[in-house]
Amino acid sequence: MTENPSVDVAVEGPVLVVGTGLIGTSIALSLIRAGVDVLLEDVNASALQEAVYRGAGSVLADQTPSIVVVAVPPSVAARELAEASNRFPASTITDTTSVKGHVLDEAIRLGADSTRLIGGHPMAGRETSGPAAARADLLDDRLWILTPTGHEGQEHLARARHLVATCGASVEIMDAAEHDAAVALVSHAPQILASTLASVLVDEPAERIRIAGQGLADTTRIAASDTELWMQILQANAGPVAGVLESVMTQLRRAVSSLDPDDSEDAATALRQVLQQGKEGRSRLPGKHGAAATRYAVVPVMVEDKPGELARLFVAAGDLGINLEDVRIEHVLGRPSGLVDLFVRPDAQESLVSGLEQSGFDVRA
Amino acid sequence: MTENPSVDVAVEGPVLVVGTGLIGTSIALSLIRAGVDVLLEDVNASALQEAVYRGAGSVLADQTPSIVVVAVPPSVAARELAEASNRFPASTITDTTSVKGHVLDEAIRLGADSTRLIGGHPMAGRETSGPAAARADLLDDRLWILTPTGHEGQEHLARARHLVATCGASVEIMDAAEHDAAVALVSHAPQILASTLASVLVDEPAERIRIAGQGLADTTRIAASDTELWMQILQANAGPVAGVLESVMTQLRRAVSSLDPDDSEDAATALRQVLQQGKEGRSRLPGKHGAAATRYAVVPVMVEDKPGELARLFVAAGDLGINLEDVRIEHVLGRPSGLVDLFVRPDAQESLVSGLEQSGFDVRA
Repeated sequence: MTENPSVDVAVEGPVLVVGTGLIGTSIALSLIRAGVDVLLEDVNASALQEAVYRGAGSVLADQTPSIVVVAVPPSVAARELAEASNRFPASTITDTTSVKGHVLDEAIRLGADSTRLIGGHPMAGRETSGPAAARADLLDDRLWILTPTGHEGQEHLARARHLVATCGASVEIMDAAEHDAAVALVSHAPQILASTLASVLVDEPAERIRIAGQGLADTTRIAASDTELWMQILQANAGPVAGVLESVMTQLRRAVSSLDPDDSEDAATALRQVLQQGKEGRSRLPGKHGAAATRYAVVPVMVEDKPGELARLFVAAGDLGINLEDVRIEHVLGRPSGLVDLFVRPDAQESLVSGLEQSGFDVRA
Repeated sequence: MTENPSVDVAVEGPVLVVGTGLIGTSIALSLIRAGVDVLLEDVNASALQEAVYRGAGSVLADQTPSIVVVAVPPSVAARELAEASNRFPASTITDTTSVKGHVLDEAIRLGADSTRLIGGHPMAGRETSGPAAARADLLDDRLWILTPTGHEGQEHLARARHLVATCGASVEIMDAAEHDAAVALVSHAPQILASTLASVLVDEPAERIRIAGQGLADTTRIAASDTELWMQILQANAGPVAGVLESVMTQLRRAVSSLDPDDSEDAATALRQVLQQGKEGRSRLPGKHGAAATRYAVVPVMVEDKPGELARLFVAAGDLGINLEDVRIEHVLGRPSGLVDLFVRPDAQESLVSGLEQSGFDVRA
């Protein structure tokens, strides 16, 4: 379903971006890069000024945009979409909110024209926020989901697709409810689980926590995310998220009851099933650690922990003409060890191993 | 509590290693490296042969070891400890099992001498197993927890400490019950949670799973672990693990009830609390992603996805005399993007940014 992001002709402007935060300003910058006329608006005057200063476009005056992109926090997205629809009665209206059903329904209830409203969710972000963190290439090669209302005019859907392609992203068309079910599964429920696990660390003695390794660090990484943004996202997608978490709790109860000291064979079977299904479910993920168990090969190399050593390793790999798909440095006691995992395409593994060994590297394959 | 791993004089041998898997053979190799006489034993003749072939020691004949290190799967550890205690009535007896209370109690019940028994848990591992994967430096700078029984002879505790130091690891003395509570918290309960989350992916449509990003990949990474090994670990530490998971389920129920569509202010408060406590708990972790939010600075750099580009970046960093503490490559749509995060000590951040920019790199700081 994903379309090639290459585009010959940029989308017709002007495009109005409402909300010059990280995502809005990045969209604006990528449109500017493609030669599109971009107009900007933000209730926060300093954010707007910063975006203009960054070259993301000019402040909206009395122009009429061909498309309005509403890139505001989830809690105000519906209202802004309805307002945009009213102010610009011929424009295509889209947004960037990470929850779709609730936001689009509410926007239509508030008066947005469902024939011109095309929901959008560019799946990109950074650990920082605000227009200063925006980048013209933030959307490059990213998935950008569009959720038409079912009443959409085809010219508006086509224009939204064109916008996405102009920003360098890949369009994926989904039903709004299906989108929300999918992000509940792969993003929102995992967020609550990571936070829940990390929350039990709060009252534990430091002596227990200090022996934690990479496993707990990975499992709880997203618990460090912004609380207020996530409150808005989770409340807007409450039903689907609760549904996923109910399934998780059912499995968790099975696993915990298996841990009863009066351990029957049946109980142990339930625990084993959860672990096995976990392994199977995990293997369904895209990317290096899931599907790419087949996609990438791992070449572990021990290097000394001093300046230039990683460089020497990467130069050697580069000299072999091998592209490193990923790098992972193992951590012990909160600091890096010398063990570096290089991820490469399977057909490059053999020549990387032999090439590195010939260069004197301590390969652990 | 952690002691410096440097050691002037190696522990007195011979040391008998029972079980020549990854950990046992790695301990043997590190002792050989330190000049210690090592004896080997394994019920699996080919694993024993492989360890001998690797230079990890010689097959036990009629020698009497000063220490016996039992490095066998959790389900048979207690029996092997008791047998070792009976066979060698003057030797110090230790093990490498990742659960301590249950294993040591059972070993003593089976006849192990509690004055000579010192529980051990070297916190090291690899994604592979068996003697072929063993490394002399696997234990270097790792935490190696020792859990005396409370009846231990001081000469046996001293000898176990000396063994750990000789292997290059750092000794941490803990009560067995406290050890089990700690690993339940930081390792065993997270394992079940990761598996549980990943298990709900099994029956979901592929269209939902394919939009998953790095968050779900990290949260479920350890779900790919070996099922049978984890069954043994979890069953041996059932009580403490169930205790942690009960706390997790309490928090999870609070979060899920907050997601009720009849959203009261109180309910939202509970969800916000779980997210906030999660953020706070997460910040207590050691290492780059937790405590090292302060310890390391992040310098994001955009590079082209082709051979040699990472090398060029690392060479530039090396030329600046700056040690990279960690590297993280962002993934989009299951493949690496060009955004590379370099982790360095905070005092090196400024010179890395300016140095890389002078070399023409696209730094995103």
